[in-house]
Amino acid sequence: MKRVSIGIDIGGTNTAIGVVDRDGKVLVKDSIPTAKHGNIDLFVDDMTTAIRELVNSVKQLNPQIEILGLGIGAPNANYYTGTIEHAPNLSFKGVIPLVKLLEPNFPDLKAIAITNDANAAAIGEMIYGGAKGMKNFVVYTLGTGVGSGIVVNGDLVYGHDGFAGECGHMTVVSEGRSCGCGGKGHLEAYCSAPGMKRTAFELLSKYNATSSPLAQKCFNELDSKMIFEAAEKGDKVALEVFELTGKWLGMGLANTVHHTSPEAIFLFGGPTAAGNYIFRPAIDSMEQHLLPIFKNRVKILPSQLKAGDAAIVGASALVYKELEKLLN
Amino acid sequence: MKRVSIGIDIGGTNTAIGVVDRDGKVLVKDSIPTAKHGNIDLFVDDMTTAIRELVNSVKQLNPQIEILGLGIGAPNANYYTGTIEHAPNLSFKGVIPLVKLLEPNFPDLKAIAITNDANAAAIGEMIYGGAKGMKNFVVYTLGTGVGSGIVVNGDLVYGHDGFAGECGHMTVVSEGRSCGCGGKGHLEAYCSAPGMKRTAFELLSKYNATSSPLAQKCFNELDSKMIFEAAEKGDKVALEVFELTGKWLGMGLANTVHHTSPEAIFLFGGPTAAGNYIFRPAIDSMEQHLLPIFKNRVKILPSQLKAGDAAIVGASALVYKELEKLLN
Repeated sequence: MKRVSIGIDIGGTNTAIGVVDRDGKVLVKDSIPTAKHGNIDLFVDDMTTAIRELVNSVKQLNPQIEILGLGIGAPNANYYTGTIEHAPNLSFKGVIPLVKLLEPNFPDLKAIAITNDANAAAIGEMIYGGAKGMKNFVVYTLGTGVGSGIVVNGDLVYGHDGFAGECGHMTVVSEGRSCGCGGKGHLEAYCSAPGMKRTAFELLSKYNATSSPLAQKCFNELDSKMIFEAAEKGDKVALEVFELTGKWLGMGLANTVHHTSPEAIFLFGGPTAAGNYIFRPAIDSMEQHLLPIFKNRVKILPSQLKAGDAAIVGASALVYKELEKLLN
Repeated sequence: MKRVSIGIDIGGTNTAIGVVDRDGKVLVKDSIPTAKHGNIDLFVDDMTTAIRELVNSVKQLNPQIEILGLGIGAPNANYYTGTIEHAPNLSFKGVIPLVKLLEPNFPDLKAIAITNDANAAAIGEMIYGGAKGMKNFVVYTLGTGVGSGIVVNGDLVYGHDGFAGECGHMTVVSEGRSCGCGGKGHLEAYCSAPGMKRTAFELLSKYNATSSPLAQKCFNELDSKMIFEAAEKGDKVALEVFELTGKWLGMGLANTVHHTSPEAIFLFGGPTAAGNYIFRPAIDSMEQHLLPIFKNRVKILPSQLKAGDAAIVGASALVYKELEKLLN
């Protein structure tokens, strides 16, 4: 009997679904459009059909397979209540009881659970990735936004209301840049992919850097990959973008260390593909901002989850954490 | 049989010891000088003698009393290892295995444990104070420094190495004031009692405020109580000190909420005696810095531990958390 779990990643445009084995390998996967019409019942029907088809196809490959459960990653998901609450990028408004809506369709499954994307990434790192065996660690996800999942004593921190781990919205620059949430100076406004673009445009303005390759892109065109490519060619503006992004990120990392004293913080997402362009200044800045008792004791590591499948793999890992709890 | 525990608060100058009942009431207490000579063995002997005398005196009052254990609060204490590590304000250098040194002297006790002062305050708040029944909360201690104790799922967060909860050293002003730890712009440099004094002197300079009563005190004389008294008389400089202190404190509180999503944050220590002079601007600033999902959901409350005895009461509460763990 081979036991597997199903990971579901609900994004603004598409919902990815995959059957994942205990080693974090995706056996089969599919993608359906995330409904734009706000009709949650139709969306649940579509998801259910897609899941059943995947289960059938995987059972044809190996009839001995047992499906343990569904793990779902979604924006503004509340683990405690099994709901998605007021997610700005989804068409479903209000509070959506997704777990309750799915349960009747899958009565044989031992666990159906939901959490936000960054928490799913943290559980994925713990079950399949670089955090195996760690009891205290954090994952920062850098992408369109900055998210985080915090693990203390082997369990994800959900807090009083299920929404803990919003490190992207801590203030790193007092009265700084506008953040998408309405706040000012938040980490996300500096260290997300759009934040890096904003830094690039600030520096183009500051230096009047007409000869930078970044000067040939309009604001809505430039992305963090282009900045990386320019840095690799030695462009000074691009190199400084990474230095500054790392500086701000390191401040955030240090604040997190001062809160929960993790063994390691994993960085996940597009901008981390730039490797030491971002890791080195981030580590330097973090060390500079740490209390002496923490200096040189906290590892900053790249996520070990494979980029393409990480969201569904992370979500599927939630199932194993649920089953652990049922055993206790 | 009445069960009590012993709380010990090791400070730079004195060490306070008290026998505390299950309601957080101090039955008897004593104080010995914290050794200045760096000889830990002599200090352990002195503590042992003082504890035995207190136990004898409390047993004379009530022979039915059972002593459950010793809880110790000390700077740079490591709960995991039972040690005090490189505490700058104590004469004992290096790593002091205090719990191991005390154990042979008290073979009948069920628990001897140590943690830092702010963690002890958090456990005290949970066992005896305003956090009874709360599973997720934080205590900020404002005094000579700014400390914190973070509770997640009913347990104190110690982190990977025992030193979690150093919220006082998160950066709230990039490249800001020097902090005692060597860092810059840390919360402690703004919201501790000396931080408030520094703000007062900045404002005296800014406004050339010769008519403020604060202008009559030298830098080494002014304290947070004087600032409070001046504020009560309507002094504009003193009132602005509280506004600014609250603003920075609120930024720190918001960062903490974004990490662990607590039900409440308790404020403890001298500066909090100013009540709404500090609570109102702190709450306003926190709300302004919070993500919408957290707004108006986190209570900022004064500590319910009685100021004079809080340190020994908090330390004594550690014993009950230890006994809970022995039961599991």
